[in-house]
Amino acid sequence: MELFATKGYETTTVDEIAATAGVARRTFFRHFRSKEEAIFPDHDDTLVRAQAVLDAAPPHENPLDTVCRGIKEVMKMYAASPKGSVARYKLTREVPALREREIASVARYERLFTRYLLGHFDEEAHRDGVSGYDEPLLAEVAASAVVTAHNHVLRRWLRSGGVGDVEAQLDHAFAIVRRTFGTGFGASRPASGTPAATAERRDEVLVTVARTDAPLGEIMATIERALGRG
Amino acid sequence: MELFATKGYETTTVDEIAATAGVARRTFFRHFRSKEEAIFPDHDDTLVRAQAVLDAAPPHENPLDTVCRGIKEVMKMYAASPKGSVARYKLTREVPALREREIASVARYERLFTRYLLGHFDEEAHRDGVSGYDEPLLAEVAASAVVTAHNHVLRRWLRSGGVGDVEAQLDHAFAIVRRTFGTGFGASRPASGTPAATAERRDEVLVTVARTDAPLGEIMATIERALGRG
Repeated sequence: MELFATKGYETTTVDEIAATAGVARRTFFRHFRSKEEAIFPDHDDTLVRAQAVLDAAPPHENPLDTVCRGIKEVMKMYAASPKGSVARYKLTREVPALREREIASVARYERLFTRYLLGHFDEEAHRDGVSGYDEPLLAEVAASAVVTAHNHVLRRWLRSGGVGDVEAQLDHAFAIVRRTFGTGFGASRPASGTPAATAERRDEVLVTVARTDAPLGEIMATIERALGRG
Repeated sequence: MELFATKGYETTTVDEIAATAGVARRTFFRHFRSKEEAIFPDHDDTLVRAQAVLDAAPPHENPLDTVCRGIKEVMKMYAASPKGSVARYKLTREVPALREREIASVARYERLFTRYLLGHFDEEAHRDGVSGYDEPLLAEVAASAVVTAHNHVLRRWLRSGGVGDVEAQLDHAFAIVRRTFGTGFGASRPASGTPAATAERRDEVLVTVARTDAPLGEIMATIERALGRG
């Protein structure tokens, strides 16, 4: 990173990198296939860790929560070395080859999460016997929303010099996105075993979701409890 | 497109394209800067049309609806020549340079819509005097959701050979996305002048959004009307 910052990325050779690191050129190429790869060494490992989070998810966790935990593995990788991440970000903005590589990495996470959500939305929809529900569409949209929120928080943190608790900022961002867009998630498919009515207060608003066959008295009691007037 | 399909994209020269089109090489370069540009000639114009849709939006239209109408301009461009769009899609999948160019185009639409939503969410939030609301985050997530839904429908249509009414498919997809993710949009910021409580039936579920200071009787009457029991 020091070499790239002082000499420029394009003009720095692998020989110079190897010499500065005190290793042979062959050693460099045992670890990395290219200069680009030396800049982004961790995406393969991070994908494996994100996949592991998905694989180990508790069976009744909301699949969107699982995916949010999955992408936190990416954030942790950046947060582990703020200075290095900021330097790499600056470089990435200047070198088109690195930017393309980064776009490709983002696409890999999106595909991983889309596949996961697809499997899990699908399962739920089948269990509830709901048809006309477009799982592939919703899985891709949800995965892209999670990845976009993550990238937004990451970019803001990198631009501000990598200062502050970016993982907490990510949790906060997910909470805002879920509060804003997530309300109706699954609303068109009431899961069996869920209560007939639920109510949730958010600031000055009360959102109630009820089965259309729920007794009115039960809906009312739920609302009164949520408003603290029951 | 015929030349690319028979001779291959990389090996087809601009001279051959010009000769096949019956024009001089100079004439080709008056219209296009490169072979890539000849493949994607319409994105600049389409961006201008999408921008015009945003600029001419009725003042009280939901900004998400405006953006959905904006991206329909992109879909119309593809739908105008299904055969050409399908051929270009096949080519794009095979030629990395074209795929990168397409990714860059998608990013331009996303930025256009993010900027628009940012301006409009912001306005609403300021009017309602709500703080702690992360407009840049939500604008980017919403823009990416709209673009992802559009690309999903477009890709499905192109893979199926460009058959069927893709604009109607897009409207249907937006309806599903809005039904699933759009419920709570703005729920944390009750706009002044909106009713104290609203209720909407969707299949077997009733979703009610109420101000926390709404009279219980009014909430109940709204629910009864929506359920058709009032």
